[in-house]
Amino acid sequence: MAMPAVAAPPAKVDLATPLGVRQAARAGAITGATADMANGHVQGNLAILPKDLAAEFLRFCQLNPKPCPIIGMSEPGSPRIPTLGADLDIRTDLPRYRIWRDGRLVDEPTDITAHWRDDLVAFVIGCSFSFEEALRADGLPLRHIELGRNVAMWRTSIACVPAGRFAGPLVVSMRPFTPADAIRAIQITSRFPSVHGAPVHIGLPEAIGIRDITRPDYGDRSEVRAGELPVFWACGVTPQAVIAAAKPAFAITHAPGAMLVTDLRNSRLAVL
Amino acid sequence: MAMPAVAAPPAKVDLATPLGVRQAARAGAITGATADMANGHVQGNLAILPKDLAAEFLRFCQLNPKPCPIIGMSEPGSPRIPTLGADLDIRTDLPRYRIWRDGRLVDEPTDITAHWRDDLVAFVIGCSFSFEEALRADGLPLRHIELGRNVAMWRTSIACVPAGRFAGPLVVSMRPFTPADAIRAIQITSRFPSVHGAPVHIGLPEAIGIRDITRPDYGDRSEVRAGELPVFWACGVTPQAVIAAAKPAFAITHAPGAMLVTDLRNSRLAVL
Repeated sequence: MAMPAVAAPPAKVDLATPLGVRQAARAGAITGATADMANGHVQGNLAILPKDLAAEFLRFCQLNPKPCPIIGMSEPGSPRIPTLGADLDIRTDLPRYRIWRDGRLVDEPTDITAHWRDDLVAFVIGCSFSFEEALRADGLPLRHIELGRNVAMWRTSIACVPAGRFAGPLVVSMRPFTPADAIRAIQITSRFPSVHGAPVHIGLPEAIGIRDITRPDYGDRSEVRAGELPVFWACGVTPQAVIAAAKPAFAITHAPGAMLVTDLRNSRLAVL
Repeated sequence: MAMPAVAAPPAKVDLATPLGVRQAARAGAITGATADMANGHVQGNLAILPKDLAAEFLRFCQLNPKPCPIIGMSEPGSPRIPTLGADLDIRTDLPRYRIWRDGRLVDEPTDITAHWRDDLVAFVIGCSFSFEEALRADGLPLRHIELGRNVAMWRTSIACVPAGRFAGPLVVSMRPFTPADAIRAIQITSRFPSVHGAPVHIGLPEAIGIRDITRPDYGDRSEVRAGELPVFWACGVTPQAVIAAAKPAFAITHAPGAMLVTDLRNSRLAVL
């Protein structure tokens, strides 16, 4: 029996599985945020750089593993990352991308096949969705989700370790908790070192250069209520900010919220 | 060859090993605090109660494992706890004891053989020395040790789960840390659930009924400096306070600081 040369698009969009989400993105059936899709599976930030910059960026990530945990990386020129999904094609499988030239955003396509080059290297970097799932599964309330907002993020006075053209401040996300819940959140996220791991700070925002806890540099305003402590995690916006600051001649990233959905299970990222 | 009926006292006091410390206590060669003796080995709080009260106390400890982690327990009437030391005799192996009648301290002997009864049950309860060793080994500074003081402790507004005649507030010990060190201290002590485990509170003393962080209810005054957070652990003084409040007709405890030194290694209490 003859096999079709190209797989037909799925008859029905299935956003409950990683393959289904990737197929939907590939077919153009989804073009925005991937939150709450393929629950239980790891979603990642995307950074694509030409080979020469990629080597420096890899070194930056190795030197700053808390904000830049690499969970997958392609061979130069290859759009495949089989460890994250056998069928995965990094050029088509995210709902939306951003194209950067000389540090300026020039396009937001849903497919980057036309932009692909044989010197490009794709990096997939862990994101807080993974540890947030573990926090929610343990019954810990996440304020920004309750409020239907993006998590609040700040540039801090903590400098990343620089590597070549990549340098800049650590960006952190903040989630408020009661003290007992904060202790539990530290325990739970310590189990996930490959998706930012334990918090980097707790309780004293000014000590890391945050002057106004009500006004984040990225994301939406949060609320730290009486009897709560702000808890700060290293954030995947750090590498994005560092790439933007380096103003590379050419780069591609995911569009905010439109992540790569991988076959990895969040629970398998737990070290214990 | 004839064996002597009673073992001769050790020719030389060796306070570096658990057996050496117990032999020294047995011989009357040490009569006070055991801090920094037999480093690397678990020291325990002692509580001895008549059989009927012991059943209620055991239930209290089971219901309140964070302040009352039982690491050893004798059979009624037996002064032996072989799991903590093959030679161990609870009547002679602590440097100093306290005898309580109707809730009043009546004697502080160095040997309780004359007080022993065949209805007594001995409880050995884990103490913070074990996790403090792990914190120090990781390079975390302990303020009270730097200052040569006892750790500061408070009665909190958190009620223990009552059991029979035993009830009362949770007592906590406090150690100040920078935020990053506090996160590390939470990780380390989480590995030691049988010696109080993770902190119960951090950062907001008033939320657990502590009005003045400079004035502890037990131990010595501590200092929380600018840029530090107070971190609170459940404390082995809790069961002692609860026993004192119950005013049992008869009870024996260790004298403050004069602990039982066991053969258990602190590192073996780590769950991971």
